[in-house]
Amino acid sequence: MVKAFVFDAYGTLFDVHSVKEECNKWFPEKGDAISTTWREKQLNYFFLRQLMERYEPFDQITRESLRYACKANGAQLTEKSEQALMEAYLNLGLFEEVEEVLSQLNDKRLVVFSNGSPGMIDPLVGRSDISGHIDEVLSADGVKQYKPVPGAYYYAQQELGLEKEDILFMSSNPWDITGASSYGFHTAWINRKGLQREEFDIQPEVEYDNLKGLLEWK
Amino acid sequence: MVKAFVFDAYGTLFDVHSVKEECNKWFPEKGDAISTTWREKQLNYFFLRQLMERYEPFDQITRESLRYACKANGAQLTEKSEQALMEAYLNLGLFEEVEEVLSQLNDKRLVVFSNGSPGMIDPLVGRSDISGHIDEVLSADGVKQYKPVPGAYYYAQQELGLEKEDILFMSSNPWDITGASSYGFHTAWINRKGLQREEFDIQPEVEYDNLKGLLEWK
Repeated sequence: MVKAFVFDAYGTLFDVHSVKEECNKWFPEKGDAISTTWREKQLNYFFLRQLMERYEPFDQITRESLRYACKANGAQLTEKSEQALMEAYLNLGLFEEVEEVLSQLNDKRLVVFSNGSPGMIDPLVGRSDISGHIDEVLSADGVKQYKPVPGAYYYAQQELGLEKEDILFMSSNPWDITGASSYGFHTAWINRKGLQREEFDIQPEVEYDNLKGLLEWK
Repeated sequence: MVKAFVFDAYGTLFDVHSVKEECNKWFPEKGDAISTTWREKQLNYFFLRQLMERYEPFDQITRESLRYACKANGAQLTEKSEQALMEAYLNLGLFEEVEEVLSQLNDKRLVVFSNGSPGMIDPLVGRSDISGHIDEVLSADGVKQYKPVPGAYYYAQQELGLEKEDILFMSSNPWDITGASSYGFHTAWINRKGLQREEFDIQPEVEYDNLKGLLEWK
């Protein structure tokens, strides 16, 4: 019997590519390309910093990857547009089924656990339509380590005061769901993009197209 | 005065995409796509394993990423084709200027330091035209950690018995040259693809289009 449902934020509950619109406002027709490079570099940069043991919070990484993405796409970032695009990251849209599914899991302990620094993840969740359903928001910044290192999942577990097997963790990100499975949580891969399974000896327990699959666990 | 010239192997001395030809033999017209995905996944998989603290040697990672790449491109890998493609990785081509440049650095201590496991990197260097120029081949497998973690560069330094500042490290891979710079080696980024600089507070010391730039250090 699972005691807490723990959700990754970026790409799982919130669509990181909803910044496309704001990108398009500043850089017409480049929104798609900028948003894609932005996310790729964001992942690349926090992986790298974790490996090099040079932790910096996620907001700095998000800013540096935005700068890279704009240069890569020939877009001249100004102080004003940078601020607007960073602000857009605090107002990402929810995937369409999220609010409804979470409202049906009212009797569960619902937690967001993200690599996002508190200054990013707290306003994002707080301003969103699921704010009332979420019991706790945890940031890996609390331990200055990024998922998928074991220390990050350990931190979340300690904060929740639960055993590994009491926790069901959900993520759309292959590296995150693999990391959480490797650590020992129950895991459900929310495979929104219909990605191919990784060729690993570590696999998520179940796989769903979107969060609706979770209603089976009720 | 630098005492050792230390070269990354894959992408720096050897062209990983020279497997394209062998891929095309088995899977006509899919060589490009398979080779590209293969390399991307190879990087992704050893990053991930390092982060999850689940080290496996580079040959296993190379095999798993090959399997992923073939599935991703609708290519049916058999025992025979898998073996042939893994074998192709032991016979990668050198970039065109490599042999000539290394022959002009005869008075230097020349070292290869790679993430490749000894079973991959030793035959690769040993069968190549630069075999006679290379004084030592080091594998990060010796410490069961992958570049760009500091422990991997530290291992190489210890094996060489030198101070950090005695070592000039060369790599084409942004994550590798950033990691080595962060660790404290002298670094020359061999930016073969003309990539954009990373948005980091850590940067390589110099940047060259190919190895010819090194002749300045003579």
